[in-house]
Parts: sequence; structure tokens; C-alpha cells
Amino acid sequence: MTTQSTSTSQAPASPDGLDSIFRPKSIAVLGVTNTLGTVPHDIFVNILTTRFNGVVYPVAPRKRHIVGVRAYNYVTEIPDPVELAVLVFPGAVCEKALQQCVEKGVRAAVIISAGFREIGPAGLERENRVKAIAREGGMRLIGPNCLGVINTEPEVRLNASFARAMPDAGRIAFLSQSGALCTAVLDYAASKHIGFSKFVSLGNKADVSEVDLLRYLAEDPETSVILMYLESINNGRELMKAAREIAGNRSNPKPILAIKGGRTAAGAAAAQSHTGALAASAEVCDGVFEQSGIIRCQSLEEMFNAAQLLSQRPVPRGSRIAIVTNAGGPGVMATDAAISNGLDLAQFSDETTALLKAALPAAANLKNPVDVIGDAREDRYGAALDAVFKDDAVDQILVILTPQSMTNITTIAQTVCDIKDRYADSDKSLLCSFMGAKDVAPGIEILQRNGVPHYILPEWAADAMWRAAWYRQWLNREVTQIETLPVHRERAAAILDKAPDGYLLESQALEVLEAYGFPVVPSVLTQTADEAVAAADRAGYPVVLRVVSPKIIHKIDVKGVILNLKNADEVRKAYGAMRDNLLQHVKAEDVTGILVRHMIPAGKEIILGVNRDPTFGHMLMFGLGGIFVETFKDVTFRIVPIRASAAGKMIRETRAYALLKGVRGEPPSDIPSIEDALKRLSQLAHDFPRIAELDINPLIVHPQGEGCHVADIRIRLEQP
Amino acid sequence: MTTQSTSTSQAPASPDGLDSIFRPKSIAVLGVTNTLGTVPHDIFVNILTTRFNGVVYPVAPRKRHIVGVRAYNYVTEIPDPVELAVLVFPGAVCEKALQQCVEKGVRAAVIISAGFREIGPAGLERENRVKAIAREGGMRLIGPNCLGVINTEPEVRLNASFARAMPDAGRIAFLSQSGALCTAVLDYAASKHIGFSKFVSLGNKADVSEVDLLRYLAEDPETSVILMYLESINNGRELMKAAREIAGNRSNPKPILAIKGGRTAAGAAAAQSHTGALAASAEVCDGVFEQSGIIRCQSLEEMFNAAQLLSQRPVPRGSRIAIVTNAGGPGVMATDAAISNGLDLAQFSDETTALLKAALPAAANLKNPVDVIGDAREDRYGAALDAVFKDDAVDQILVILTPQSMTNITTIAQTVCDIKDRYADSDKSLLCSFMGAKDVAPGIEILQRNGVPHYILPEWAADAMWRAAWYRQWLNREVTQIETLPVHRERAAAILDKAPDGYLLESQALEVLEAYGFPVVPSVLTQTADEAVAAADRAGYPVVLRVVSPKIIHKIDVKGVILNLKNADEVRKAYGAMRDNLLQHVKAEDVTGILVRHMIPAGKEIILGVNRDPTFGHMLMFGLGGIFVETFKDVTFRIVPIRASAAGKMIRETRAYALLKGVRGEPPSDIPSIEDALKRLSQLAHDFPRIAELDINPLIVHPQGEGCHVADIRIRLEQP
Repeated sequence: MTTQSTSTSQAPASPDGLDSIFRPKSIAVLGVTNTLGTVPHDIFVNILTTRFNGVVYPVAPRKRHIVGVRAYNYVTEIPDPVELAVLVFPGAVCEKALQQCVEKGVRAAVIISAGFREIGPAGLERENRVKAIAREGGMRLIGPNCLGVINTEPEVRLNASFARAMPDAGRIAFLSQSGALCTAVLDYAASKHIGFSKFVSLGNKADVSEVDLLRYLAEDPETSVILMYLESINNGRELMKAAREIAGNRSNPKPILAIKGGRTAAGAAAAQSHTGALAASAEVCDGVFEQSGIIRCQSLEEMFNAAQLLSQRPVPRGSRIAIVTNAGGPGVMATDAAISNGLDLAQFSDETTALLKAALPAAANLKNPVDVIGDAREDRYGAALDAVFKDDAVDQILVILTPQSMTNITTIAQTVCDIKDRYADSDKSLLCSFMGAKDVAPGIEILQRNGVPHYILPEWAADAMWRAAWYRQWLNREVTQIETLPVHRERAAAILDKAPDGYLLESQALEVLEAYGFPVVPSVLTQTADEAVAAADRAGYPVVLRVVSPKIIHKIDVKGVILNLKNADEVRKAYGAMRDNLLQHVKAEDVTGILVRHMIPAGKEIILGVNRDPTFGHMLMFGLGGIFVETFKDVTFRIVPIRASAAGKMIRETRAYALLKGVRGEPPSDIPSIEDALKRLSQLAHDFPRIAELDINPLIVHPQGEGCHVADIRIRLEQP
Repeated sequence: MTTQSTSTSQAPASPDGLDSIFRPKSIAVLGVTNTLGTVPHDIFVNILTTRFNGVVYPVAPRKRHIVGVRAYNYVTEIPDPVELAVLVFPGAVCEKALQQCVEKGVRAAVIISAGFREIGPAGLERENRVKAIAREGGMRLIGPNCLGVINTEPEVRLNASFARAMPDAGRIAFLSQSGALCTAVLDYAASKHIGFSKFVSLGNKADVSEVDLLRYLAEDPETSVILMYLESINNGRELMKAAREIAGNRSNPKPILAIKGGRTAAGAAAAQSHTGALAASAEVCDGVFEQSGIIRCQSLEEMFNAAQLLSQRPVPRGSRIAIVTNAGGPGVMATDAAISNGLDLAQFSDETTALLKAALPAAANLKNPVDVIGDAREDRYGAALDAVFKDDAVDQILVILTPQSMTNITTIAQTVCDIKDRYADSDKSLLCSFMGAKDVAPGIEILQRNGVPHYILPEWAADAMWRAAWYRQWLNREVTQIETLPVHRERAAAILDKAPDGYLLESQALEVLEAYGFPVVPSVLTQTADEAVAAADRAGYPVVLRVVSPKIIHKIDVKGVILNLKNADEVRKAYGAMRDNLLQHVKAEDVTGILVRHMIPAGKEIILGVNRDPTFGHMLMFGLGGIFVETFKDVTFRIVPIRASAAGKMIRETRAYALLKGVRGEPPSDIPSIEDALKRLSQLAHDFPRIAELDINPLIVHPQGEGCHVADIRIRLEQP
């Protein structure tokens, strides 16, 4: 909770000043020692030996020099200006050291040292003091409790981290809330020849957060794609806003990929014991990430596979893929993986088929996946690739090669690169899977040198193509505005602003919904059987009786709902029976009354809901209702307020959509009326921050043109 | 179809004689040339240069010698006995060459040559002729159209393939129906130091099939785990039988892992254009593989990850895992992956927690996942592993290491191996993920040399642990017998044996079900409204009317079903209305009558079904019924006849099970009555091979103790 409240209670930090972290002219490392193999030593040496293009000063009290470089007792002793401070002192010393940095006029700091929030309340206090010093001194701060930062730009070459080697320069920026993951990722990426533009260990995020870094990297010409590993999210709304702007910038889209650690309950528990961070549930995070254009991944492999494709330009234009292979089996496996992921096999034009037929032997398969046959050499691959590149029905192209005895691997690799160059202006993407390892290594090297994304297994390529296609679809989405529907806000406020925290009475909740234009069936709150019969006569039979009582939350448990009463007689009997039964559970004065309403005819049951997420605020939910909610968890989430197009999208992305469209000749349900209800619900939650939970379950949906009706409603209020 | 019918029309081939393929004393390669880089040349040279422990003779008409070895014009010219022939002649020459092999007394052949079934009808004929020659000559045959076979046993060292290098010896056998995949797999496995016992390219499977090889490998002391890539299955029943015996042999279980290429419709189409093989649908194959204990994988990565773990002994004992890590983030990611896969985090005993507390620093996380903290060295890893190995609640242990500056990687690796040795008698498994590449490489090498399965990413380890846990659960399953329930077989036969191909009338289908003891509601076939009213009076209201007509398959489309008729008057009116309406669709003489029955009260709707799969025969299906079948595809399949315990398992493995158990305080449904119906359905299908399709949809299930009722039935007959 602390993370969030601290961040939101102050003005959001601006990304200004981050240049002093990534492109400093001079650095002081505070707390350097002479002991090889320790962080306080290695970080200084790393900056030095990876050939930082600037000056680096060791601050090491009572030392004359560190590995031959003149050392200083205090940062204030350094005779030249210092732009960036890297602190490796023990945590307890950091406050004083940082104060001296302020005196020295240092612009930014990276605190590597541990001993802060992660060790408990005393550490959190220390972290808050350090943060205050930096804020007051106008310094930006990365960490504490982090691994450091890396910038591979040739004009800078900064490795202020305890990573042993500088990674290759590349177009991928990586942010990680787990320092240990950084070391593993650097090593993993090196083995796959994946380069980075910037590499940042976020640590405790006392000042600089993932949002600041996203905004900085958005402007970074070296970065084409941004990867994040997050365990907590400081400010969900800011993250979403930044992501939408950066990933959704149509003139210069920068894809953002993220892993949210702590997906499962057990994972979240592990995350909490690790950083004390809040974990948002997997479904909520999925909804939010999708809404913001963030490509959510579940493993490093998925993330780097997709990043390799997306760090190329342009962003692939769609989901229709062509496969060119010299082996049937891998072609089948790639097709299986692609289709399961939601990609489509492109349907070739007659022209393409004719081109393939002319170029390939009789035994070749001219349909997609194109099988150029095991003895194919570069001519067949070249001709096939040329043909599919020309086909307008193809968005992404996967080349599969297995090393057979006639396969001239390096020549084919070169041909693939030539084709890529020939179609440099195309918006199609080209990926390769040269399967194997040693035999195909020289071919892979050629591909990687020429910027062709390569995957050992075609399944990985399929996974990357799918994520790219998803992103393209999001990028091309229709961006609509937030609609404001005409509602009786004051009527709802009269109830919601007055009611205490806790559940509203059903009669009040219905009035709120009515004020906001929901399809509520008129109901009358009655006190006697006679009143109930009179109300039923007016409502028309069959009717429903529902108890209203502040003491009763679950009506069914106390037989507080009776359905399908067909005449006055039945109403009278049911009324008496319900009252008698209720009085066994609650006192007479606790029964506010019994609602009488016309019974809603059968229809499809869905659920609409709102809950207030600690990270993201009000979330809107749509899903299949009734007893199916818990079994199938067929629900989807969006942040409130939703845009006009989101209501339809929420419905379409559930499996319930198939039911609503009508299966087996059933008439389609009234989907527009559900969309309308979702928009109204979004507006209601947005207008009243005190709504903590709201469930319309079920909303009964009738055939097209006949609308829907609220069958049950529950609203809980709580001061945010 | 050809594949299947050819195999089943003859006696199944026995695995005898396969020793001549894998362990021949002498080999003739028929069709060798002197052209480097071609199959006919390379295969001979591969056998020679990978140091085959026997004699190899080149047969190369009109050549004196091949790479210095004396050549022969015909196999019959060879002065010594020849045990195995490897044919690399063009397809057209193979018949004659094989005939000569028979004359020579050769025991077995591997036909590498293409030009058979895969090129069309002429090729298929040639393949059948070749097969006949082999059968008549008493020879076993691998291929044609394959890459060859490999046996790494030191006493044999046979590389009769066009793979460039001999793989390492290991405990994994690999069978592949895609030759090209073989080359890629060998190269991929080499880079991960994965060794093989046997390696077989199946080709067109004219004689030796996957079943023969499974039975051979079951007896092979070099093989601990069997991997298969299949695109078609020759004889589904035989495959299942063999798999159950081998994977289910409790005294010496050999896990079988398989990828079935052609999972998706598009994948299956690709598979068909490739080998002309039949593809079974993904759901059917999943059910069959699960039933037989085959661990189904979808990618090579999944398969080899699991194989590395399962090639160790013993098979891991369960799904409760412990994680020991020096980094929080990867611990969180591993936990997420494990839980999503269905593994459980072990709950440590107090003793374990005390041991961990004594050995680890204050900042360590003593709960699972155990975080030994970034500066951990071998002592902490050793103590933590020792503690979790002793805990009875732990089944599998994952060690995660990230290379931080204090991490002594190789020493920790050695400690892990020592612990493994110390607990050599334990039935727990130990896996490692040393994350990264270059930095951790020396540590990984130590692990691999000592037989500790290693995975670069902890998510992969989690995937392997999950598959191993699944297999353990299958291995420990209760094995029950097939029950034979008392039924009126003759009564059903009187209808089923007489009826023509096509749909049975509903009245007949109901009689069949009744004969087999299904809960059928008594119904009366009526010809007039008076008869209907009389029947309704006897049945008790409300009643249902249902048309019976050989011309009407979909009753709903012609309003041929009317529900919920509450009295004689309503029945009379409805009867007239239905008749009038029907006569707009069919002639009066085509209406057999109108069924009258008491209306089944509401309940949970499920579907039971039978279909006849071309590969596996009769399959039994269970799932959520009504309009949800198509939307959620929440169904499961088993081969007919099922064993006693299978009915319950089928129900429990669907999500519908949660609904049947009762959600939100609903009473549980009568699950035993569904189990009974499943057993009866299995027996019915087994007794009557002509049943091609059968749907009970819905079966309406009432609360526990109140049984279930067949609400609709459709049976289609067709000669198999």
C-alpha cells in the first residue's frame, strides 16, 4: 500500500533529468573498495573497463587510489563537476553520502545499496528520508536496492552495473524490478546475439519508476521496443496512459512487452515476501495491459522471441502468414503452433501459385505451407520467397530450414537476406527457423548479422508472429472517445452521497440504476400482503417477491426470493410464508419491506460488475453470468471510464459472445442493450468514487430488439 | 485410409527381427555412389566413419571400390553373409534390389529411397510390392522414404543415416515420422548435450511401425524413455495397447512422450499433403494418449525438457515442488509457471523451517520458494537443499541460480551434484536452472556431466516437472476392469441388426437405450389427438410432444417438439398445431407418429456421445451439454470399451464437474447415475460396431439420488 499512496500523494515525477543517469559526462562511485569480486569494487571497475566515454571518480574514504585511479574521501572533494553518483556504500551510510552529493551539485544518483524498504519498516523510513533528500536537492534517483544501469550508445558506453560484460548494442530497452533477473537476462541474451539500447534495474523505485523510464525511452532514438519485468505497479493509471501514448503512437509506434511476476496466487505471495509489493490479479492485469497496448508475456522466452521480431521495422501488418519449408514435419508443427495461437495461413493468389509452380519441382507442395522439398537449394528458396513476398494476402513470412545433406545452409541464408533487402520497403516481416544448432550455426550468424529474426524452433517463431499480429491489430484499432450519456446524476447522488459505507438496500440500488438509465423492472416496496397483491395486480402476473433488509445480504439463504407467482392468491400465500420464515432470521423492524415486480422472462444470463482495484482503480467487468461465472471464469475487464468502442470489444472477447450471437438457430441476443448498460455502468462508477463493488448478476438478455433487464443488483460503498 | 486398412487386414507384424536392424553383424549398402554430398554416398561413409563395430559392404554396380572399400555389383556377389541391407538405389530399382536381398538371405532392410506412397498411386503400388517381397522373404523393413537408423550402443555404433555426426550415447530413444525433423533434432540435442540410445526415422512405415518399435524399445536396456513424432497412426488400438503396457509397467516404467503433428485443422491439412496420412482430431488424440499414459507434447522443446527429467531414475513421485533460489524474480516466475501448470508448492514441515532458519541469514525467505539471497554461496545452497530433501512433503526440487558477483557458480554446481549423490536412494527429483548462458556455462557442464537435468529458464523446468507429475499420477492410477452390466442385448439387436444404414427413428433409438438400461422416460407413439390425450393422462402432466419421422432429423427446425403441456386441452391444441405445421414440410405418410411423454423436470444438461474414429474406432464422449457444447468445447473422450474407473475420471476432468458438484450452495447432481449411463453407452457401442454416431444431448441430470433422464437421442448406423 505504501508504494502506491506515496506515489499518488505527490505530483508525479517527470522524466526530466534522466539524461544525467543515462548520458552523464562524469560519474562518482561512492563507497568503492579494493576487494575484487564485491559489488563496491566491481561496479567501479566495470564502468572503467567497459570504456565509459567520460570521467569516473572513485570515492573511497581513506584510500589513495582504486585500481590505479586517484580516490577521494568525499564526493565534495572532487575538484571537477560530477553529474551522476553511483552509491555502493552500506545502506546506513547512504543518507549522508547523498546529502553530500546534493551539496556537490550532483544531478542524479543510482543507489545500488540494499537495506531499504525490502528489509522492513526501519528500511522503509530510511528509503523515505533518502528520497526526500533527492527531491529537495533536485536529484533524480534510481533504486535503491538495484543492480544499476547500462547504456550501450557508442558515444556514452555506460555500464554502471555489476554485470560482468557490456551487452551488444541493439534496439531493445529492458527494465527489470528484479536485479538478479538482469544478470541472467544479459547472459541469456548474449548467447542469442540479442543487443540492448538501455538496461535498467529498477530496484525499489523510490523515485524513478517504470512510467518515468517509459516516457524517457519513448524519446530515445536508440530504442525500438521496450521490455519490462514488473512485480509491482506504482501507479496503474499513469502506466496505462504512458503505454497507450507510446505503444499507440501511430507515426512512431514503440511496442512495449511486459511480464508481470506474481500472476498466480502463489506467485503473488512469493512476490510479496520478496518486495512487499502489491500484486494485481492476473485477469485484471491482462485486461489493463490489453487496453493499453502492452504485449503481455509469461516467460522471458516469449518476451525475447517477440522482441526480436518487433525490434525490426516496420511492425508486421497482420496475422496472415506464409511458411516456406524444406521439410514437411516442421511445416506441420509450425502450422499447428500458428493456428493454435490464432494466426491464419494465407490463401495464395492464383498468380502466386503459378509462380511457385514454375519454380518448384513437381513433388513440391505449392499450397501454404510451401514445401520446397528436402533437396532444395538457394534457388528454390529464393523463388518461393519472392513469390510469397509479392502476394498481397501475406503479412508475415516464416522460412524453415532443416539441415539435410543437399542443403547449402549459408548460401540459403544469404539468399534470404538478399530477398529481405529486395523487399526492404515492404511492410511484411520475414522470420527464419534454421532448425538444429551446430550445423546451421553459420547460416544463423548470417541471418542475425543482417537483422533477420531467427528462432531455433518454428513454434517460437509462431509465438512471436502471433504477438506481433496482436499488437498490429491493437495499433489499428478504432480509437473512440468516452461518451457521456444523459443520466440523472443528482438523483443517484441523493442516495449514494448520503448512504453509509457498506451495502445499499436493493430498493436504493435499483433507484441508482434507474437514475442512470439501466433497464430496471419497476418494483414496489410493500409492507403488507394487501399492498403486495395490489402492486402485483398493477405489475401484471407472473410476479416476484424479494425481501429488502439491511441485515440480509444473501436473500436466497433466507428464502427471501420467491419467483413465478401467477395470481393474487399465490402472492398472498407466498407473502405470508416469506414473512414467517424471515422472522426466524431477523427482527421484524429489520425488514424494510418486500419488493414486488413483474417477473423477467427467461433469457441469457450475464454478469456486469465494477470493483475498485488497489493499483488501477475502478475496473469494469463483463462475463457469462449465473452459475457459470465461477466455473468458466469467462470474464473480461477494462479500466473505468471506458471508451465507446470498448463495450463491444469486451463482449466480443469472451466466449459468451458466441452464445449471445445465437447458437443452433437460436435468435441472437440484444447485444446493443448490453453495450449500453456497460457504458452506463462505467459512467456511474466514474461519477461515484465511493462505489467499491457493484454486481449486476444476472443481467437477463432478451432476443435482439427486446433489450435486457437487471435481475439482481448489489452495491457496496467504501471511502477510497 | 490405405495405411490403416492395409495394416489391419493382415496379422500385426511382430517386433521380432528388429535386432537385425539395430544390431547387425554385417551391412550391405545398396546403390552407393562416389558423389560426395549425396545420400547414396554419405550414408555408406557415415556407417564407415562413425566406426561401426561390424562389416559394411558397398553395392555399387560397375564400381571397383567406394572410398577405398571393395565394391560389389550385386548384393548376391558378396562372399560373406549379410544381415542388414540399406537401400539407397532410386525407388524404381528397389524392388529388384530387395528381391536379391531375399535371395542372399538378408534378415532386414532399411529403405532410404523415396518414390513410394508419398508420390501418389503408382508409388503406393510400388510400396505394396516392396512390402510383399519383404514379407514373403521373411525380412523386416524400415521405410521406405526415411532418413535411416542410429544405435549408439558402444558394442554396435551404427549410424545408417544421413545425419552427419553420431549423437552422444544417452537413455532417450527417438522415433520420427518426419525425416527432416531428425536432422534438426540431432543438431538441437547435440547443443544441449542430450544423448540418445536409438534414433529411428520411420518413413512410410510399410512394415515396421511405431508399435513394433515401442515393443522393441520396451525390452532395450539402453533406453529409459521413448520419444515419438507421429503424423499418422497406423493402428490406434495397437498403439494404445503397447503404450499402456510399456508406460504402465509398474516394475519398470518407461515413459513415452509424443508429438502428434497435425493438431489443428490446417496442421492436419499440411500433414495430409505431406504424407497422405489420416489425422485424428486434437481432442480425440488427447483423450487416447492420456488413457494410454502417453505424455502428449506440442513442441520439441516441451518434449525434450520433459525427456531430460524422465530419463533420470526414478520417476518423480508427485506434484509438490520446492524451489531454492538466490533471486526473488526468477523464483516468482518459476512459481507462476508451476502453479499455472497444476503443480503445488510444498508446505514445509516445522522441522524443515527450523533447519532453514538455522542455516540461512535473517533476510532469507524460509517459505517456499526458499530465497537464499543474492550473495549465497555453496554453503547456503547445500544447507537449503539438504533441508528440503529431508522434507516428506516435497516431491521435486528446483534449484535456481542467477550469476551474481558473489555467486561461486561451479562450486555450487558441485554441491548440487553432491547432494544428489547423498540422496541417491530418494525418489525425489532434482532439477536446476542456472540462468544465463556464458557465465553459468561451466556450472551447467558440471550438472550435465553428473546427470542433473538443467534448464536455462525456470519456466521450462516447471513444464518438465508438471509432465513428470502427470505421468506419476497416471502410473499410480487405480487400474480397474471392464464391467459387463446386465442388459437386454437381443432386444437391442432386434432393432439395430435390422435397421438400414442411416438414422434410427427416435422411437427405435429409445427402445435400444431402454434395452440397455438407460433412464428413458416412458413414451407412447400416437396417431391421433385422442390417443395423445389418453397417453398424456396416463403419463401425468406436464407432457411433451415430439414428432417421429424418418424424413425429419432436426425436429426443432420444423417445430416438431412442443414442451410443457399442462392439461388435456393444451395437448389437443398442440397436437393439431404440430400436425398442421408438419404437413407443410413432409407428407402425411412420412410422419410415423407423435411421441407423448411426461416432461422431464429441469436439471443440469450434459451430453454423452459415441463416434467412430477412423484411427481409434469407437470413442466415448462426455461433456457439458445443450447450447454450451460448441461454445466451451468442455468435452472429454475415451476409447470404447471403458474400464470401471474411467467413467468417473471422464466426468472429473471436465470443468462441468464443478457445476455437477454444485456451486453456490446448489445441491450436487447425481453423478453416479451419469457414470452408469457412460458405462452402458460404452457397452452398447462395443456390442454394435455398426453404430457410427450416437448423441444423447441433453442428458438431464437431477440432484443426487434422483438420477438422470435421456431428453433426446440420435443414433446413426453405418457399416464400418
